[in-house]
Amino acid sequence: MRTAKKVDFPVAEARRYLEPGPTVLVSSSWRGQRNIMTLGWQTVLEFSPSRVGCMISSGNHSFAMIRDSGECVINVPSSEWLDTVVDIGNCSGREVDKFAHFGLHAETAQCVKAPLIAECFANFECRLVDDRLVADDSFFVFEIVKAHVAESPKHPQTVHYLGNGEFMLSGNTVSRRRRFRDDML
Amino acid sequence: MRTAKKVDFPVAEARRYLEPGPTVLVSSSWRGQRNIMTLGWQTVLEFSPSRVGCMISSGNHSFAMIRDSGECVINVPSSEWLDTVVDIGNCSGREVDKFAHFGLHAETAQCVKAPLIAECFANFECRLVDDRLVADDSFFVFEIVKAHVAESPKHPQTVHYLGNGEFMLSGNTVSRRRRFRDDML
Repeated sequence: MRTAKKVDFPVAEARRYLEPGPTVLVSSSWRGQRNIMTLGWQTVLEFSPSRVGCMISSGNHSFAMIRDSGECVINVPSSEWLDTVVDIGNCSGREVDKFAHFGLHAETAQCVKAPLIAECFANFECRLVDDRLVADDSFFVFEIVKAHVAESPKHPQTVHYLGNGEFMLSGNTVSRRRRFRDDML
Repeated sequence: MRTAKKVDFPVAEARRYLEPGPTVLVSSSWRGQRNIMTLGWQTVLEFSPSRVGCMISSGNHSFAMIRDSGECVINVPSSEWLDTVVDIGNCSGREVDKFAHFGLHAETAQCVKAPLIAECFANFECRLVDDRLVADDSFFVFEIVKAHVAESPKHPQTVHYLGNGEFMLSGNTVSRRRRFRDDML
């Protein structure tokens, strides 16, 4: 299943999709190879420039591809793709082309060479901007340089890993906007 | 409302509570003062030693307290506390003692001087172990040295901030354990 048409989205508002903590798919490319990894260890770091930090273990085939290319795309899958998300995390790009194996469509990004995953409802093109913690701690600081988000649904159901093979699925959205100070919104 | 009785929990399994991306309450103490802040920008970094990274903006009253004490407690509130979570994030410890103001109970931690928040269903006692990115980027790397978790319910409903005053509430839990390789569990 392909996602709805995507539109450009302000990079400074990427927190809407990443701060809730979804399990994401990180795509990369380097020297003619492409790969996808499943990642749960990410956090927003700044609005503008839009920055996100990802802990990408060096045991992953994607680690060197992302470090050496200095790029990746963070793609957010909806819960329809849960089995694929799991399966992507349980095989290695050393052995399979995950785009081909899982029937996912690679789309050309605008600012990076790493491909977008068409089936994900949000795609964040990222450039590595701080590698001080990469060698010791596998922690990458990226700037989101371009964001693409599906116009609908407004709140796609996301998956959030709990460990031990279990996932939390996102539930209802509630507003507490009236309780916020204007300068906190 | 107080939470159920808590038990010691293996620090290496803290990801169960933090990886799904809940909005958390971070408590700290320094020189006779105590404070609480609301935080959404955190990620698990390692299982053992158990490490978590938090982006704590220097505009927060808690910033210097945590930097100077080298400690904090990460407390996970359930959705019953959503209004309190919002209100804690919309006032400053410069002006109020948030424990007293919000009627929250400070409990003595075992390994750090920062207090636990009794009303939260999980409490992670943290020591600052890497401050290389604190001055430039407000990114703190903590080691979780002690964990306390309520025995029930098994899956408390958590809150996940979306920005603009909106929150996602955690939904159902599903297992895909059968799809995982043994060494990935």
